[in-house]
Amino acid sequence: MTENRIFNFNAGPSALPLTVLKEIQASFLNFKGSGMSITEISHRSGLFDEVINDTVARTRRLFNIDEKYHVLFIQGGASLQFAMIPMNFLGKDAAADYVNTGTWSTKAIKEAKLLEKKVNVAASSEDKNFCYIPQNIEFNKDAKYVHITSNNTIKGTQWHKFPDTNGVPIVSDMSSDIFSRPLEMDKFGMIYAGAQKNMGPAGVCMVILRDDMLKLSEELLQSENKTLPNMLRYNTYSSQNSMYNTPNCFGIYTIQLVIKWIEEDMGGLAKMESHNQEKGKMLYDFIDNSNFYRATADRDSRSLMNVTFRLPSEELEKEFISQATKSGLGGLKGHRSVGGCRASIYNATTMEGIAALINFMKSFATGK
Amino acid sequence: MTENRIFNFNAGPSALPLTVLKEIQASFLNFKGSGMSITEISHRSGLFDEVINDTVARTRRLFNIDEKYHVLFIQGGASLQFAMIPMNFLGKDAAADYVNTGTWSTKAIKEAKLLEKKVNVAASSEDKNFCYIPQNIEFNKDAKYVHITSNNTIKGTQWHKFPDTNGVPIVSDMSSDIFSRPLEMDKFGMIYAGAQKNMGPAGVCMVILRDDMLKLSEELLQSENKTLPNMLRYNTYSSQNSMYNTPNCFGIYTIQLVIKWIEEDMGGLAKMESHNQEKGKMLYDFIDNSNFYRATADRDSRSLMNVTFRLPSEELEKEFISQATKSGLGGLKGHRSVGGCRASIYNATTMEGIAALINFMKSFATGK
Repeated sequence: MTENRIFNFNAGPSALPLTVLKEIQASFLNFKGSGMSITEISHRSGLFDEVINDTVARTRRLFNIDEKYHVLFIQGGASLQFAMIPMNFLGKDAAADYVNTGTWSTKAIKEAKLLEKKVNVAASSEDKNFCYIPQNIEFNKDAKYVHITSNNTIKGTQWHKFPDTNGVPIVSDMSSDIFSRPLEMDKFGMIYAGAQKNMGPAGVCMVILRDDMLKLSEELLQSENKTLPNMLRYNTYSSQNSMYNTPNCFGIYTIQLVIKWIEEDMGGLAKMESHNQEKGKMLYDFIDNSNFYRATADRDSRSLMNVTFRLPSEELEKEFISQATKSGLGGLKGHRSVGGCRASIYNATTMEGIAALINFMKSFATGK
Repeated sequence: MTENRIFNFNAGPSALPLTVLKEIQASFLNFKGSGMSITEISHRSGLFDEVINDTVARTRRLFNIDEKYHVLFIQGGASLQFAMIPMNFLGKDAAADYVNTGTWSTKAIKEAKLLEKKVNVAASSEDKNFCYIPQNIEFNKDAKYVHITSNNTIKGTQWHKFPDTNGVPIVSDMSSDIFSRPLEMDKFGMIYAGAQKNMGPAGVCMVILRDDMLKLSEELLQSENKTLPNMLRYNTYSSQNSMYNTPNCFGIYTIQLVIKWIEEDMGGLAKMESHNQEKGKMLYDFIDNSNFYRATADRDSRSLMNVTFRLPSEELEKEFISQATKSGLGGLKGHRSVGGCRASIYNATTMEGIAALINFMKSFATGK
């Protein structure tokens, strides 16, 4: 690869498209002829208005949604959303359904419970160490929302078909697979995603909020939520184009370039999905045909973003990761909580990267 | 100036040292030989540990403080701190003193009141449109803290001597003058600052928290604050080196480079202060000796960071700002809430920039 760059399989922060990095670099001292860096321009300037408005417009085009969906940029990552969601949508007597598919779902559930909200865990795959996505779930018809994690970075599972919730809006943490495929947006009351996997640098969370959910939160602000801090209210962001205070301008700018790349270079979300399917198939097929490597997630729940696998022993895994790093293949260590190996192959991972990984895996296995 | 850069007098986000921008640019595709961009490396890596630990160590050295002070990085800007401060430090029966010196103080007070906390406005300069810093204030001895805004970007005033609070810890918003001068840190229970004026890009807030304040917040977490969200608890950050979740890595990295520049290139905070005094004196002296320009803040309360001034008429101000922009002097418009002109001359503003501004001001006045 050029510029002595490695093949980066980090789970997040993770690889960004090289063309995006190069554009940021080229304009870093002088953004659009302003004589200033993107980090030095006012968020109240026309220049930045263009950045944020274009990012919102591209997001709406890519997901085929209209102004009924508010596209917001909030700091604090998905972890702050774990609190904001129940705080904004659940009054004293209201309840929400949560599906537990691993670490991040568990955290979202814990946070809602910490806030003393009524949480019903409608389904969980904890019985099998979260290696699958639960099916045929019975949801509570009175739930204000159903919370899911669309892709589980740590366990390497992903929802391939979103559940039927009897019209209850789905609220989904999509931190690790947003913009990786088209979505049936009608099902979702809210989507949120920390930028640092598929969109940009850490420090900004995109929230796509449907108008009925915003209204629900505004009703609560009028009644029992009067003391909610301004920075934790969704309408603080929706009413001021995410600029009640200074947003993470650099993060939003990077997202703009990344989704421009998806729209213009990759050809949109359907093509992005095909590309991701092709990459995933190539890697999973290789693993499945190997006697040396073993994929850990159930076949029909496998993630196209995070491919988790094991080697015959922990010693071999250690050696594998170490040799891979030396060979210019980075970030293949599994999450510290589960061990093993993991190749995160987000949107920005190229076929060239997958081929290089498979070649290395082949030669490593042959040598053993 | 080189690279077709302008002289940038924006109030925030604002000018950063050119040497810092160049270093970011040069390493943007390959950070320290990792083969990855700073935006692509894991926050759980040794590479990033070095970044954050060095930023903390340099902050402690510059302010001459030890480990009794926790240096934290929190998202959400100073605006989120307006809520976190009363939420973490004020129990039901406790009260805090606030000094109101303008827009940002007013917002901090409003947010504490929204949370139904006991707020005492111990002093205010609202009677004279916030053109001065109140003196000889009587503080409540039982207050848990005294909140001030050390520098007021909009009104152009600054605390030059911090008040005697009878030992009550000062909590100061220093978003617009942190690292501009040495501080008697004994007086402060907490300092916080959005990065986007004197430290880096928007999207990260530095919090320097003294151990006794952290303990106060931890006691409340054990008693009446059990439902406080994890992301709003100071000890979530202090116990995990600001990495409970993914921090704004790029923002922290930029802060590291900026304070390295202060420490190594500028020679520390005492020298930084002299430099800022020299810049401020040059510009205020010119204004004071002019019959055309008029400084708006009281002489002994003038900010060394934001120089607010008026011209004989609003039409002339409009023309001044427009011609200045065309001459490569950007960001001279006063805040939209007050009008007039403002030159923000933070740490990164050079003597060359001040000289260019004065030259322009001279020739503009002569032409009228």
